[in-house]
Amino acid sequence: MRPKDFISISDFDRDFLDDLITTAAKYKSGKFDNKPLKNKDIALLFFNPSLRTRISFELAIKQLGGSPSTIGVGGQTWNLEWRSGIPMDSDRAEHVIDAVRVLERYYQALCIRAFPELQDIKVDASEPILSAFAKHSKNPIINMESCISHPCQALADIMTVREVAGKTNKVKVALFWTYHPRRLPLAVTLSFLSAAVKFGCDLTVCAPEEYFIPSEICSETKKVKFVSNPSDLDKDTQIIYAKSWSSPKLYSQADQDLSGRQRYKDRIVNSNLLKIAQQAKIMHCMPFRRNVEITDEVADSDSNLMYQQAENRLYVQKAVLNKFVS
Amino acid sequence: MRPKDFISISDFDRDFLDDLITTAAKYKSGKFDNKPLKNKDIALLFFNPSLRTRISFELAIKQLGGSPSTIGVGGQTWNLEWRSGIPMDSDRAEHVIDAVRVLERYYQALCIRAFPELQDIKVDASEPILSAFAKHSKNPIINMESCISHPCQALADIMTVREVAGKTNKVKVALFWTYHPRRLPLAVTLSFLSAAVKFGCDLTVCAPEEYFIPSEICSETKKVKFVSNPSDLDKDTQIIYAKSWSSPKLYSQADQDLSGRQRYKDRIVNSNLLKIAQQAKIMHCMPFRRNVEITDEVADSDSNLMYQQAENRLYVQKAVLNKFVS
Amino acid sequence: MRPKDFISISDFDRDFLDDLITTAAKYKSGKFDNKPLKNKDIALLFFNPSLRTRISFELAIKQLGGSPSTIGVGGQTWNLEWRSGIPMDSDRAEHVIDAVRVLERYYQALCIRAFPELQDIKVDASEPILSAFAKHSKNPIINMESCISHPCQALADIMTVREVAGKTNKVKVALFWTYHPRRLPLAVTLSFLSAAVKFGCDLTVCAPEEYFIPSEICSETKKVKFVSNPSDLDKDTQIIYAKSWSSPKLYSQADQDLSGRQRYKDRIVNSNLLKIAQQAKIMHCMPFRRNVEITDEVADSDSNLMYQQAENRLYVQKAVLNKFVS
Repeated sequence: MRPKDFISISDFDRDFLDDLITTAAKYKSGKFDNKPLKNKDIALLFFNPSLRTRISFELAIKQLGGSPSTIGVGGQTWNLEWRSGIPMDSDRAEHVIDAVRVLERYYQALCIRAFPELQDIKVDASEPILSAFAKHSKNPIINMESCISHPCQALADIMTVREVAGKTNKVKVALFWTYHPRRLPLAVTLSFLSAAVKFGCDLTVCAPEEYFIPSEICSETKKVKFVSNPSDLDKDTQIIYAKSWSSPKLYSQADQDLSGRQRYKDRIVNSNLLKIAQQAKIMHCMPFRRNVEITDEVADSDSNLMYQQAENRLYVQKAVLNKFVS
Repeated sequence: MRPKDFISISDFDRDFLDDLITTAAKYKSGKFDNKPLKNKDIALLFFNPSLRTRISFELAIKQLGGSPSTIGVGGQTWNLEWRSGIPMDSDRAEHVIDAVRVLERYYQALCIRAFPELQDIKVDASEPILSAFAKHSKNPIINMESCISHPCQALADIMTVREVAGKTNKVKVALFWTYHPRRLPLAVTLSFLSAAVKFGCDLTVCAPEEYFIPSEICSETKKVKFVSNPSDLDKDTQIIYAKSWSSPKLYSQADQDLSGRQRYKDRIVNSNLLKIAQQAKIMHCMPFRRNVEITDEVADSDSNLMYQQAENRLYVQKAVLNKFVS
Repeated sequence: MRPKDFISISDFDRDFLDDLITTAAKYKSGKFDNKPLKNKDIALLFFNPSLRTRISFELAIKQLGGSPSTIGVGGQTWNLEWRSGIPMDSDRAEHVIDAVRVLERYYQALCIRAFPELQDIKVDASEPILSAFAKHSKNPIINMESCISHPCQALADIMTVREVAGKTNKVKVALFWTYHPRRLPLAVTLSFLSAAVKFGCDLTVCAPEEYFIPSEICSETKKVKFVSNPSDLDKDTQIIYAKSWSSPKLYSQADQDLSGRQRYKDRIVNSNLLKIAQQAKIMHCMPFRRNVEITDEVADSDSNLMYQQAENRLYVQKAVLNKFVS
């Protein structure tokens, strides 16, 4: 029995996720070429911009025989309200409840992207938009990145680790906070962290202390080592996952997060960092800012795995759609 | 002989429209599964946002074997001018005449959405954009909601009435004006009113007097009863069609319409209204504002037919495309 | 051996281009109906708006058996950076290098539209965006209009000349600068000029002197006659190609270009101009401004070839895709 929705890594055990990655690898190898979405229509609902996620979902759906409809909320369509019980007198002309009840009569599944507001960590952790869709839809809801969760990315990431290291158990991975001029969501960070722990990686988070992940928002952090200085990275680190994220500690204080991080502009993946961990390969979920998060030199070297991660998104999404929609 | 275009309910007699609804019902039942749009390309041109209309047209076209192209005017493409004979020195870079002459070489039909300006009722009633397209296009023009007309919605509405009441003749329907924070077009109101009268419904319009529909803009109003108080609704009303619209009387006085309606905030479909008409089912074209137009309680009850209406859009559009394009 | 990319008319000799037009004519006649793009996915990347180019590319790809993905850069997706070696701290969240490396794993070809900044003619002439894509992509890059080049338009234009005149050699063509309230790119102008010279047309450019095309930005101008007054047009001119463009001389002085051109508001294709060249047919790449660039009278007459040009875009793009992608 599988759950109706694919929303968060933490909803599934390792075997279930492993099975998805194995299916993804079969799609990648060309050994598996089924059409489970034949005569099926799938809606892709974007509350926020996307490149990789959108095109990899569109192609995955088409290549599985289905037909995708990409819908930009608030652009060519109405803004959607998701709060319950309030009088709808804002600029949001339609409620998620009602959009769902219409969309589920037209489509066999809904894939949703809805970023956090980054104001109140409890609100964001409750996944207000995704959970409204999941609650009201009889059909599967697939997460294309929500407030605190990006499960398709995490599966593509673990698939990449497995391709590169031949396994995931005991692989030494550092999740490395980089400077970034904007406050980014925690979704990729938390989903990768959860998945890496589930898959037995030996995970270190390297970040300034105010960017450490508290166990209240991610229980797997108990199995993670935290270090605050790049120089504390193990020299036999196999993979450095570069990523910026908002400070959980300063979540409601955007200005302090942004001014405080100015002193961390040296948190960049460059050749100096690779002197500490000389064998490390570099991962990133993309998009990334050259010479801010990662230098040109490192990004253009053979140690960069991010294009492989991006390609794996296509196969992972096929595996997820095959499992949850067919 | 059918006309070239499908623009307004008032262009067709009951038999013609009845035939379209019968075809729609066949599509819905699955008894009819033809591919009249095979190798046909259809353009969907949106001057304004859309959810239901866009996705139901896209799916209808695909399921009939054709290929839809959704084009957002002024977004990813140029703004279009529709006034004749003027020097084009505004921000509208292309004329409808010329867009049509190109589009008709690529596509077998054009579906258009173009809302009114809500400034001059005579201008809006002349359908400046739709009639420019219809005049210059050799191919069929299908109305996806224009200034004063939304014929596909009206057909889906009548189809829903027939499904629920088993007939349309003598069915007691109230078109109920609700409060809304914005001035909405008259298109759904007028098309439903025309269609309900044509199909023999016993129609009452319940609205504050300045929202009554004058016969100059809709001749079928002569067969309609107007009441100004919700308490005047017949207690055996079978269907309450909730809808807000701009005041025809204050059409050029937006501020007075908006300030004047503040005293009508109690015009909402709630359990009190359903004490007057206890058996009434609720219709709405969607999107609707919860707890402004209709309460959660009523919207989430079994008396709400709006999702059925929205689903019927798909079948009605198949019937229209099958008739006008194939 | 063909080059990898289709970026500029000046990269190809007449035989190569002639062959493309001949293939386009076969597609138009219906004699040729292959599916070279079967199971192929093609991305259409738009940095700027489009109508004809977008829909003709989409339809061409579909009709050749492929599947197009239309992506509006900076709208539903991230803004892209194309400058090399800089720290990416602007609002451009992703670099072209990285977008290409992802897109080439999903798509078999990229078609790009990227207009000029119209500030520095040397920057624009270096085609910063297109050349970044071409440099980094292993797959074909097709130009859908760049800073100074619009090769698909030029091929459709030459195809139209050939259809109308039965040949291209010695056909008397005037490229006629019209007044326009905005500064337009030089892409159509330069590509048509290059193509017309290559195909042996007897080409005259008629424009105020500050709008003459210097040989530094287009070497074919040496074979072109320049006249500054409409009255200097040959009376046996067979084709007047109406087009506005920015002043190359005032390229970095936008205000002076715009104020200076106010005295040229009479540069419009009207019946007076057609008294000078009585047999001339009118071409334009569209969109055009009625009664600013061309009068209604001329646009609505039989001498107007622009809809034929627009239709030919479909066949030319099929020929280009068939050659470069299959």
